Amino acid sequence: MNTMTSICPSELVRLPARHGVAIRLNPGQTIKVINTHGKQVVDTWAFNPHDLYEAISMEHSRPFWLKLNPHKGDSLLTNKRRKILTLVEDTTPGIHDTLVAACDPTRYVQLGVEGHHDSCNENLFLALDAIGLVAPETPSPLNLFMNVPVHPDGRIEFAQPVSEPGQYVCLEAQMEVIVVLSACPQDITAVNGMRPQDVHYCIL
Amino acid sequence: MNTMTSICPSELVRLPARHGVAIRLNPGQTIKVINTHGKQVVDTWAFNPHDLYEAISMEHSRPFWLKLNPHKGDSLLTNKRRKILTLVEDTTPGIHDTLVAACDPTRYVQLGVEGHHDSCNENLFLALDAIGLVAPETPSPLNLFMNVPVHPDGRIEFAQPVSEPGQYVCLEAQMEVIVVLSACPQDITAVNGMRPQDVHYCIL
Repeated sequence: MNTMTSICPSELVRLPARHGVAIRLNPGQTIKVINTHGKQVVDTWAFNPHDLYEAISMEHSRPFWLKLNPHKGDSLLTNKRRKILTLVEDTTPGIHDTLVAACDPTRYVQLGVEGHHDSCNENLFLALDAIGLVAPETPSPLNLFMNVPVHPDGRIEFAQPVSEPGQYVCLEAQMEVIVVLSACPQDITAVNGMRPQDVHYCIL
Repeated sequence: MNTMTSICPSELVRLPARHGVAIRLNPGQTIKVINTHGKQVVDTWAFNPHDLYEAISMEHSRPFWLKLNPHKGDSLLTNKRRKILTLVEDTTPGIHDTLVAACDPTRYVQLGVEGHHDSCNENLFLALDAIGLVAPETPSPLNLFMNVPVHPDGRIEFAQPVSEPGQYVCLEAQMEVIVVLSACPQDITAVNGMRPQDVHYCIL
């Protein structure tokens, strides 16, 4: 992790593969999310801690950006059309996803999994539960590093991330916010290069 | 409306411009939504009447279709990944939108409108209130007839519908469902050809 300390002067925290975490940020604080091994998707949410019904919204953000995906300088809006996070830095090629729901137990049943399988949806609720909160529902996430190419005829596909080890994004809080990260446990499709991995983050 | 009766043998109902309506369907019933004047967007939702937290979800439907937009034969999923409606007929060129949130009062303030402006979000809550229900939140709608072209670089734009007068879609209920339609009152952008109009529907 020596190379990691150079890009994270503050405390570097490991988010273990297949797990989630909830982090409270004040306005102006920034979370740096590092794709330590390069091919790990991180489902990302943001909630107003004073009203969990106000949360990051892809369907409100896309028409604000007039783009499918955010790039450096773009702010993510809540379902009340307020800026909640701004993508202030991105050392990846800029491929993230806003189209696809978080994986959940039903998704894995439909993919043929028998028994329990970790999921980003469960990670969201476990992470919030760990700080004493319950989300009223699951917003559509910002899927950092996720590669869902859109073809000219409107078809979409699940492809492997194009990010490389150590590449990262920085999200700056525009209001008081609870950020939830889930290191996606998807190992049935190519979403995480077939092998869920740890990621790291730090608060700046 | 003579041409309309030929495509709607059952009672034809007018949904006035800028208004919404909630309709309860049993499994197997179909709602035909007619773009009477051709260029009117109809924001469309579907809820499980026994659990309003289960509702139509664009972010769950897109990965199921592996497409941005549904075509004839495609089913819309709920946030529990269950089929709720199936697009069984579509006489339009097949351009609908799944990317953009319903318009709401904040949207019109941000567009420079002073004072009250009708909105699809308000129409959703008024339509449900009329049958004694309250949605816990506003799902991202299926925007029937709405034309949001996606460019190869990921940019999106708001364009005029390509549907023509009298063209329609038919949505068949796959479970007990409450369908909400809103004749979008957007008159600031080109979404409805700058002029919100009546549409019609009937139950088959």
